Amino acid sequence: MRKTKVVVVGFGNLGRGVQQALKRCPDLELVQIISRDPRRAQREARGVEVGDYQCFTRDAEIAFLCGGSRQDLFAPAVPGRLPARISHPEELGQGPFFAQFFNTVDSFDTHARIPAYHHCMNKFAGQNRHTAVISAGWDPGTFSLERIMADAFIPGGRHYTFWGPGVSQGHSDAVRRIPGVEDARQYTLPVARAVSLVRAGRNPILSARQRHTRLVYVVAAAGSDRRGIMRAIKSMPHYFADYQTRVFFISREQMRKKHGQYPHAGFVLTSSEKNQHKALIEYRCQWDSNPEATARIMVACGRAVLKLNREKRYGAYTMADIPPAYYSPRSQLELLKNFM
Amino acid sequence: MRKTKVVVVGFGNLGRGVQQALKRCPDLELVQIISRDPRRAQREARGVEVGDYQCFTRDAEIAFLCGGSRQDLFAPAVPGRLPARISHPEELGQGPFFAQFFNTVDSFDTHARIPAYHHCMNKFAGQNRHTAVISAGWDPGTFSLERIMADAFIPGGRHYTFWGPGVSQGHSDAVRRIPGVEDARQYTLPVARAVSLVRAGRNPILSARQRHTRLVYVVAAAGSDRRGIMRAIKSMPHYFADYQTRVFFISREQMRKKHGQYPHAGFVLTSSEKNQHKALIEYRCQWDSNPEATARIMVACGRAVLKLNREKRYGAYTMADIPPAYYSPRSQLELLKNFM
Repeated sequence: MRKTKVVVVGFGNLGRGVQQALKRCPDLELVQIISRDPRRAQREARGVEVGDYQCFTRDAEIAFLCGGSRQDLFAPAVPGRLPARISHPEELGQGPFFAQFFNTVDSFDTHARIPAYHHCMNKFAGQNRHTAVISAGWDPGTFSLERIMADAFIPGGRHYTFWGPGVSQGHSDAVRRIPGVEDARQYTLPVARAVSLVRAGRNPILSARQRHTRLVYVVAAAGSDRRGIMRAIKSMPHYFADYQTRVFFISREQMRKKHGQYPHAGFVLTSSEKNQHKALIEYRCQWDSNPEATARIMVACGRAVLKLNREKRYGAYTMADIPPAYYSPRSQLELLKNFM
Repeated sequence: MRKTKVVVVGFGNLGRGVQQALKRCPDLELVQIISRDPRRAQREARGVEVGDYQCFTRDAEIAFLCGGSRQDLFAPAVPGRLPARISHPEELGQGPFFAQFFNTVDSFDTHARIPAYHHCMNKFAGQNRHTAVISAGWDPGTFSLERIMADAFIPGGRHYTFWGPGVSQGHSDAVRRIPGVEDARQYTLPVARAVSLVRAGRNPILSARQRHTRLVYVVAAAGSDRRGIMRAIKSMPHYFADYQTRVFFISREQMRKKHGQYPHAGFVLTSSEKNQHKALIEYRCQWDSNPEATARIMVACGRAVLKLNREKRYGAYTMADIPPAYYSPRSQLELLKNFM
């Protein structure tokens, strides 16, 4: 079997997850890791060649973009009209830059900016006859396509999304930026009462506070003002102010021992309107390692991006635009026989 | 908006469900019901024109095929090589016959014969530049595509499918064929202990009996041999012999009052292999009316079959071959903004 050559751009938790997931794919071969900090990457790359933004291989068909949404993937230095071409990743972000050279798969997850990112990726992938699968993962990603299908199958239904129990990376980062905080881990938990009303098809109207609770574990610096830290967390707008938030101070040792994993979970549920026959669709997932989950979904999207590209479907796609069979390494006959 | 003209073939529970579901689709217009028994259909068609196998309109883009899998959709009179063309639905079944004239959507659900049916539909739809979406519904249908996606996202995972609580149409029919049985309703129930082991990610190996229990409600003819009926049910191979089956005799009145609906439910679950990070994906649905559920999914597939056909994707497709966004009546921008 001819292997498809791929690169990984960005070598944090997610990039390492993609490297791991690729080991289970006999059809894909990792030929280079491209990193802003190639020296650090080289130490952990375990024999894989490392490139940087100036000097990277063009001999690969897919780039898995493993940077973060805010800082890395799409961060236009100058907002406004898109340039004709991009000469450096810092100009518009890694997404549009690398879409000029490869088919790409990324996990862009800033929901409010997805239409703008889609527009940008559609241009730079499209004009280079490449295909870009954006926002792959579980939310956005599988949750998005499940919301779209359930909306089509239960017209007029009400949609719910619950997250947790699990670690929210963005919220943990926000706490870490508070002065006096050495480390932090934020767990999101769905409120049990809300979940049971929704699963019973009762279609409740729920505020943010009624849906999720937030637990924060903090390692405070010696001599820091714990009451001040607690106030700063609980009053942080968007992140914590609208929620019931509980804060626990723990030692560095406890953090290392008990909070070293990044589990996450969640579900989307669509429930028919009242005065109709009851109908309910729930999609739920649960992961001991959140970066591993996103990585595996991205790798499956790698298979899909190749098929789309070979059909000359250039430009930007989301998982809602991909036939489910395109993720599978199995033959059509095997799917018809054993999976229908 | 120009409406797409559609026909319904077969006017039982499912056909009536599709007629209902079409009322919620401003983009689709039902122009004819085609029935083997046009007189009976005319009585219930509520103003819609009725045709029969000899005389039906060709002026429609989609045919929703609502016949049963065994008797109606695919029942080759002579097995073997496929003919060049088909002049009557009884020759090979309604599926290939109507695929000569329309794009089609059906809910062919005899799992073991899906590859053969796919092959046949692919030929007759394809050579007439039509597109056929086969095996639409929830199992086969959404459950199939969920099994395929979960298999790609959790490589090496173990798959489980549970049905119920709900009425199994095929099993109810099988009981009705026993001499002395006037009416019957068979409920399938998942075994609670098995479900909790599976949801806990314990990957149990389960026999048929350990997964599902069957309850049968029977209206017996006056003077019939109830013990004989019970024995006939419990010993029926494939249907009941391998399960814990409980039989209850009830009056015609009770049957009418308590068992007039056709609810159904089920879920598919994929769970990672042992010695890996735990990963779990569950898709669950629950319907007060099973025919309504299948009908709604088929109508959403109608939207998809048109899009595929306009892309010149001719031949047979399953829901695993359809991008989820194709089911939606919403615009791409709305999906990117509100559903990602």
